Amino acid sequence: MSSNQNIEKLAIDTVRILSADAVQKANSGHPGTAMALAPVGHVLWKEFINFNPKNPDWANRDRFILSAGHACILQYSFLHLLGYDLSLDDIKNFRQLHSKTAGHPEYGLAPGVDVTTGPLGQGFANGVGFAIGQKHLAARYNKPGFNLFDYHVYAICSDGDLMEGVTAEAASLAGHLELGNIIYVYDDNKISIEGSTDITFNEDVDARFRSYGWHVQSVEDANDIHALQLALTNAKAEKQKPSLIRVRSLIAYGSPNKSGTAGSHGSPLGADEIKLVKEFFGFDPEKSFNVPAEVAEYYSKIGSRGIAYEDNWNKLFADYAAKFPELAAEYTASANDELPAGWLEKLPVFAAGTKLATRQASGKVLNAIAGSFPNLIGGAADLAPSTETTLKESTSFTSEDRTGRNFHFGIREHAMGSALNGLALTKGIKPFGATFLMFSEYMRPPIRLASIMKISPIFVYTHDSIGLGEDGTTHQPIEQLASLRSIPNITVIRPADANESAHAWRVAIEKKGGPTVLIFTRQALPVLDQDKYAKASNLEKGAYVLSDAENAQLILIATGSEVALAMDTQAKLAEEGIASRVVSMPSWELFEKQDAAYKESVFPKTLKKRLAIEMASPMGWHKYTTDEGDTLCMETFGESAPADELYKYFGFTVDNAVKKAKALL
Amino acid sequence: MSSNQNIEKLAIDTVRILSADAVQKANSGHPGTAMALAPVGHVLWKEFINFNPKNPDWANRDRFILSAGHACILQYSFLHLLGYDLSLDDIKNFRQLHSKTAGHPEYGLAPGVDVTTGPLGQGFANGVGFAIGQKHLAARYNKPGFNLFDYHVYAICSDGDLMEGVTAEAASLAGHLELGNIIYVYDDNKISIEGSTDITFNEDVDARFRSYGWHVQSVEDANDIHALQLALTNAKAEKQKPSLIRVRSLIAYGSPNKSGTAGSHGSPLGADEIKLVKEFFGFDPEKSFNVPAEVAEYYSKIGSRGIAYEDNWNKLFADYAAKFPELAAEYTASANDELPAGWLEKLPVFAAGTKLATRQASGKVLNAIAGSFPNLIGGAADLAPSTETTLKESTSFTSEDRTGRNFHFGIREHAMGSALNGLALTKGIKPFGATFLMFSEYMRPPIRLASIMKISPIFVYTHDSIGLGEDGTTHQPIEQLASLRSIPNITVIRPADANESAHAWRVAIEKKGGPTVLIFTRQALPVLDQDKYAKASNLEKGAYVLSDAENAQLILIATGSEVALAMDTQAKLAEEGIASRVVSMPSWELFEKQDAAYKESVFPKTLKKRLAIEMASPMGWHKYTTDEGDTLCMETFGESAPADELYKYFGFTVDNAVKKAKALL
Repeated sequence: MSSNQNIEKLAIDTVRILSADAVQKANSGHPGTAMALAPVGHVLWKEFINFNPKNPDWANRDRFILSAGHACILQYSFLHLLGYDLSLDDIKNFRQLHSKTAGHPEYGLAPGVDVTTGPLGQGFANGVGFAIGQKHLAARYNKPGFNLFDYHVYAICSDGDLMEGVTAEAASLAGHLELGNIIYVYDDNKISIEGSTDITFNEDVDARFRSYGWHVQSVEDANDIHALQLALTNAKAEKQKPSLIRVRSLIAYGSPNKSGTAGSHGSPLGADEIKLVKEFFGFDPEKSFNVPAEVAEYYSKIGSRGIAYEDNWNKLFADYAAKFPELAAEYTASANDELPAGWLEKLPVFAAGTKLATRQASGKVLNAIAGSFPNLIGGAADLAPSTETTLKESTSFTSEDRTGRNFHFGIREHAMGSALNGLALTKGIKPFGATFLMFSEYMRPPIRLASIMKISPIFVYTHDSIGLGEDGTTHQPIEQLASLRSIPNITVIRPADANESAHAWRVAIEKKGGPTVLIFTRQALPVLDQDKYAKASNLEKGAYVLSDAENAQLILIATGSEVALAMDTQAKLAEEGIASRVVSMPSWELFEKQDAAYKESVFPKTLKKRLAIEMASPMGWHKYTTDEGDTLCMETFGESAPADELYKYFGFTVDNAVKKAKALL
Repeated sequence: MSSNQNIEKLAIDTVRILSADAVQKANSGHPGTAMALAPVGHVLWKEFINFNPKNPDWANRDRFILSAGHACILQYSFLHLLGYDLSLDDIKNFRQLHSKTAGHPEYGLAPGVDVTTGPLGQGFANGVGFAIGQKHLAARYNKPGFNLFDYHVYAICSDGDLMEGVTAEAASLAGHLELGNIIYVYDDNKISIEGSTDITFNEDVDARFRSYGWHVQSVEDANDIHALQLALTNAKAEKQKPSLIRVRSLIAYGSPNKSGTAGSHGSPLGADEIKLVKEFFGFDPEKSFNVPAEVAEYYSKIGSRGIAYEDNWNKLFADYAAKFPELAAEYTASANDELPAGWLEKLPVFAAGTKLATRQASGKVLNAIAGSFPNLIGGAADLAPSTETTLKESTSFTSEDRTGRNFHFGIREHAMGSALNGLALTKGIKPFGATFLMFSEYMRPPIRLASIMKISPIFVYTHDSIGLGEDGTTHQPIEQLASLRSIPNITVIRPADANESAHAWRVAIEKKGGPTVLIFTRQALPVLDQDKYAKASNLEKGAYVLSDAENAQLILIATGSEVALAMDTQAKLAEEGIASRVVSMPSWELFEKQDAAYKESVFPKTLKKRLAIEMASPMGWHKYTTDEGDTLCMETFGESAPADELYKYFGFTVDNAVKKAKALL
């Protein structure tokens, strides 16, 4: 063994043992995969991944995703050794309160974690978003001699990732789009929690990925550094097809009694076994968190190279800015999430008296502002016409046209959501994705993860109630509003008309720190008169008094399509001598951010007789309607019928609303 | 053309036109696929599907699933013509209020619909459950000369079905389990809503399904009856591998101006175009809903055969019952959902003073009652050890052992859920499936569809809060309880201790008319003293006074692991001279079913100072805590740390609960 090989082996074994030590100290975690894949991490970071530990956000870094997030101690160990702001104490604090080294890699906590992973399949699909982002930025900004964006997307995936449906969707999409910048390592360790993967997973993974249009290679031993290097080099040379490298590994390699067992997947090895591991690798069995000085120096040097890489890139960008000042300025503004001057004037104003579905209004708004935001890109899960989300002045993003801003995600809602997260994590891109509100159910995990990461993709959901009519029970949202609103850090907006829809987009575009969900109708709604009633710009406050009355005896609260019903109900009540206030409440979350005085001005403590009208589950409304109020909501699933029939059957009529309102008095 | 061919063509064309007419009259629906696939339906029902239109529930019928549920008018047309209780008026009432012919096929509405479909991919995966059901019933009950259960599972799937991730999971599982009783037709029409499928879907479907272990054939023209017959015959002969038959079709075949276009997918053809269609097929363009007498007779005769099929089967079953009376009685009892005598005595009783996680209690209960319910089968999404859901006295269901009652679903939560629905729709089987509560997010659509269909699979979710500790934010449920509770027809139960867990299982086993979700902890909880406090059997009422106090000044409401905290808080408050009542509230839905008097007895109107304690989103609690109450819930996502640290950090301590309680007074 050459001295070069010696130090490599020592370095790799150090990572294995450091990982096992951290799990042991935490008395919690997943040592097996980290011990097995240390050689993979070593080759990746030493020879392939382009990174600067001093600036984890460097725009042209290669992305690394640990889709098998449970093995995070592997990543933490490398990040520490490579010089990221992650100390040995952070490693020792693995899985402790407020530490950077959480139980699964969390974006924003540990520097160098490009995306939060853990729920299986997500990282795999996030990477498709990263890869799209690179292709799009390159097409938009790269010029001859200026390869500003040429990064790759690396990931480590597990059997679990490959079993998840979201991975199947994302892999099919990546193959279709010819995302050759994807290089994924699949840890084929034949072990899952219930035992050998043979008990449930014997598909031919290689053939499956080839059928998606991927370039597939295999490495028969995760410890074969040379084979890993060769496969990764081939993968990088393959420009058209995404790459999967299947690597056979032995879980908990080096553990005499636990390697190759399910027991080493999710539990510490135990103090005695760790000693045996250290002996196996020739380490002092009595020492923990032992990083030999030569290993520290070795990885530190590797990390330091990255500073120069970014320096060179910064010089390249400076030259680019001199030669292409407009493009450079555009990119910089996009990357900094700057709002272009004059964009607010582009927001359409819809005339009172007209009638249109909020999905149509949304389509008009989107197209009106698209010119101001070259970084606004998106698409639908095969529902662009129905969701009105096509950017009419732009082409489609395809394998041949990477400048296209319209995405055909296919009937793959889940992968769409996860790809949007990858895009939202790409500076310079503001992504949106659309489907019917019902099919938000197919993409709950990425909505949640966007909320956890506090990133701001825009989820557009149309066909938002029984108002969609004939498609019936399976397509009519009932509990979707409640279940979306229950997610922390989310902003759900259900605008009442076309002008509120414009302001809903405004809020979504301006939003930082969490995803926005825009909810639109299929059916036409009247445009409210902004001269006669409150301005739609009040939407930003979440709830506002749309139409007041002196000495109001009760409040009618409504969202979306039911605001018009509330207005009609107010008029009918007035005819009967009952004064009422109408509150349009497009967003609970925006309202909750207002101060107490504003809240009191909308919902005075002295006016507790309140009727909430919403064609959705009543869950959560009691908070606003109080003990003295009531709800006119959907208590059951819907039915298949023309919408007008459904409104009558389920009681969304002026007569019924009046009856419910009067019952409060 | 022979007269036989003539009548077949006439019959097929009648279905195409009947379907187009129904969509036109409804002015809503999907004509294209029905027109294209009438020959497929014809061959299936004429020659392959074994059914009795007079008894759609016949246990040994072949199952038929329209996974492409939007094309339901195709199925309705056939069901009508074949003699099911579905009249021509029902066809004319397509998509109208309370009609049997809803906009997507709904189980329980139209006879002959074996499962509700519409959300894509679900039907495909439900069929895997049906297929498992057949294999299991056959293994358990078939005897030489008595092939009681030998049915097949037929389905029609679309491009959309094949793009959905749940299909990928289900296909991989079906291939692994060698479910040769599956025969699926894939409608390869190259059209989706956004246009040609080429814009997003160019994977090699045949190769992909072969990689899963499927038998794949192709038919190049949906109108080639002979090729369809041949392929279906081959598929039926293939006993080991599930079959996919890819059939190239022309959407809206027969429509001169709309065939082959996305426009014919989801919209009526228009009155003028329908006339052209009728002319194309040689029908009178002025007549609508025209079923030629010879076609009516032709299909009626085909339908009538089924009466004899079932008669023969009933005779076979009678002979079987004579020869194997115990097995026949067991099957009959299972099929009728009878509860075996003495099973309640099998429910374990846990001694106060001990401590165990409710997941552990659940595992003990499940194993204690498994012997009483031979039809209780289930498994986990690679988390059987963690969810404690292994039936220890049983083997695993594999391709070689179909009697096994333990299922290794793999890391495929979504397919697990959909397969459970197929199993729950199989008389004689009571299925359960388990994963972590967080991963219920991956399987929302089947939970909802079980609720819509009012079928009763049992979903077991463990690791139900920040109490799971170190795995951190991505794994700690926050909004999952609220979002599950918001689904109509569902019963969510979060038991407080081991004895409530036993009764949670009791309720789940007895439940009809909707799914039950059982929520269990990872962490150990004290077993409450049933002599000192109220009996755990009160769980059936959803909420009950666990521990009362004279002149209680407030109510502490808690669920699951927080009930013990509420008890400690009550004790601490008592020390300070404050009398309080503790209500254990394991299930909102069960409580809502109680009468007003009972509800008042638990939550008296005169006692509105109430503190709800639950380590989950507060959404929905206000209804029970009232304007004078408060919540001690999770307002943010969790963190990665040992559970005890998290309780302190997030305020789930006696001190903090006492503080919050006192603030109400």
